[in-house]
Amino acid sequence: MPELYDVAAIGNAIVDVIAPCDDAFLAAQGLVKNSMQLIDEGQAEELYGHMAPGIETSGGSAGNTVAGVASFGGRAAFLGKVADDQLGEVYEHDMKAIGVAFDSRPLTGGPRTARSLINVTPDGHRTMCTFLGASTELGPDDIDPAMIERSKIIFLEGYLFDPPEARRAFAKAAGLSRAAGRLMSITLSDSFVVERHRDVLLAFIETECDIVLANEAEVKAMFQTDDFEAASQALIDRTRICAITRGEAGSVVHAGGASHVIPAYPVEKVVDTTGAGDQYAAGFLLGVARGRSMDVCGRLGALAAAEVIGHYGPRPQVSLEALAKAEGLI
Amino acid sequence: MPELYDVAAIGNAIVDVIAPCDDAFLAAQGLVKNSMQLIDEGQAEELYGHMAPGIETSGGSAGNTVAGVASFGGRAAFLGKVADDQLGEVYEHDMKAIGVAFDSRPLTGGPRTARSLINVTPDGHRTMCTFLGASTELGPDDIDPAMIERSKIIFLEGYLFDPPEARRAFAKAAGLSRAAGRLMSITLSDSFVVERHRDVLLAFIETECDIVLANEAEVKAMFQTDDFEAASQALIDRTRICAITRGEAGSVVHAGGASHVIPAYPVEKVVDTTGAGDQYAAGFLLGVARGRSMDVCGRLGALAAAEVIGHYGPRPQVSLEALAKAEGLI
Repeated sequence: MPELYDVAAIGNAIVDVIAPCDDAFLAAQGLVKNSMQLIDEGQAEELYGHMAPGIETSGGSAGNTVAGVASFGGRAAFLGKVADDQLGEVYEHDMKAIGVAFDSRPLTGGPRTARSLINVTPDGHRTMCTFLGASTELGPDDIDPAMIERSKIIFLEGYLFDPPEARRAFAKAAGLSRAAGRLMSITLSDSFVVERHRDVLLAFIETECDIVLANEAEVKAMFQTDDFEAASQALIDRTRICAITRGEAGSVVHAGGASHVIPAYPVEKVVDTTGAGDQYAAGFLLGVARGRSMDVCGRLGALAAAEVIGHYGPRPQVSLEALAKAEGLI
Repeated sequence: MPELYDVAAIGNAIVDVIAPCDDAFLAAQGLVKNSMQLIDEGQAEELYGHMAPGIETSGGSAGNTVAGVASFGGRAAFLGKVADDQLGEVYEHDMKAIGVAFDSRPLTGGPRTARSLINVTPDGHRTMCTFLGASTELGPDDIDPAMIERSKIIFLEGYLFDPPEARRAFAKAAGLSRAAGRLMSITLSDSFVVERHRDVLLAFIETECDIVLANEAEVKAMFQTDDFEAASQALIDRTRICAITRGEAGSVVHAGGASHVIPAYPVEKVVDTTGAGDQYAAGFLLGVARGRSMDVCGRLGALAAAEVIGHYGPRPQVSLEALAKAEGLI
């Protein structure tokens, strides 16, 4: 079957509610800065009641990544579950408006579209509390074989190890991907996700994945060490291609026995780090899909991350393709 | 009855959907740049289907103004109608989160919460298409006498001359305001609103209003002339206090036989002019409520307008009180 997409992503379809806060607010609400925790609908209402006015915008880690791929001029598809409600309509609109294929049937009669309540401190760091809602209903039936078989790269988010049905969807996608000879990739998503699902995540990486994306905290959590070099080496030993991000310290990309240190792009002012890892993944995967060198793949990721942290919201506000051309990367 | 609020506003409770576009998009959709037009739900779906991904944020002209008043440290109340849906919940949350009194019962079983589809061109200018939805159901029963009687200033938006029931709400509010000896104020909102309702708007201004806010296009439309001086004089002749905004050319404030020319505050980059007039009104009315000179009232308005056009979204993202203190205005 001919290739149609650069990247097909499977993820939680989440609307972000982004509001400013201060560190005292996080402390008062008992929230761990920079983390993501799962909350139920009642907790979401309680927390929302204490939050400042927000903006609502389509989010979700893998959804943000395919939005980035599309902004680079890549072709992308998304598999995720929204409910038959207003925020679900917004989510579907925002995907289709950027040309991302999105054909999941909205859930009816179940929980509402997922929301992530994101509190952003003045230093730009984000702390997320996510009510998974309808996105937990994503299951194997939502995996369209044609989307998987016709994509160069399949991309999964570690967050989807939380809803049980999604793991069966992953298994189906992995089988289809392998049979079609596609590249399977995953992001570890969050250090607490790694803590909750370390063994199955590690087994999935070792048996199913060609490409792994992680940040420093996640790779340390995965291998239960505070030694970044040791943790990185442990990941490198288990993967064909991996990219590990370190915030303003840049990233390390490893493939084919060689490591590349990629500097972060300078940012005038960090406004909101929401989506930084997701956009790094977008640039990196687009580079891989286009067969670029590992160094260029990492730079594309760094460029996309730098754009998204300069404004509120987890998706690019300008054409990443134009930025990358200006930098001579594509 | 003792005063409780600086400003009580009556307006359309609208969630803004803000997306970037170019001038060719406006032309293709047959939209007049910088205008507001009313659309029905079908037209809203059609236009939304062509728009880029957006952010959703609470808006509505008078609602934006009370958000600005609250940001200045003022006490405010809002009267407007949302539906019993997700966007209605967002609207109510955002009002209460900034301490604005908002007790309107959500509409059940009727149209959905109002949405304004706002397309923003690279020069920062906004073009609005508004589906009024549930906000058209605002009527006299939604006017809480205690809110009106306990507010220094009542503020109405000209946009509310479109839904017929709202005019009866205005009449009730005007009667309560006069009986309680409060100041009645209005913004003309939009030149097409003025065209549609010129005679009743003018009659309302002449008989009920103490303070009128308008921009250059609206005052010219009101008095059917292209001569700004003549149009301004015609408004001055009919009002106790008026403020006329002229974009980057600043504003003219008139009261007690004296005119004051107020310069615009410099803005590094105009990102999105949505809410500029609303925030000017916030600063101006807060100044009046605090008994400041006309010159200071105008400068407070200009300061608030400058903040809001520097980012996407119609409400302040930083404390206007802090900005005003830094400028020595409060």
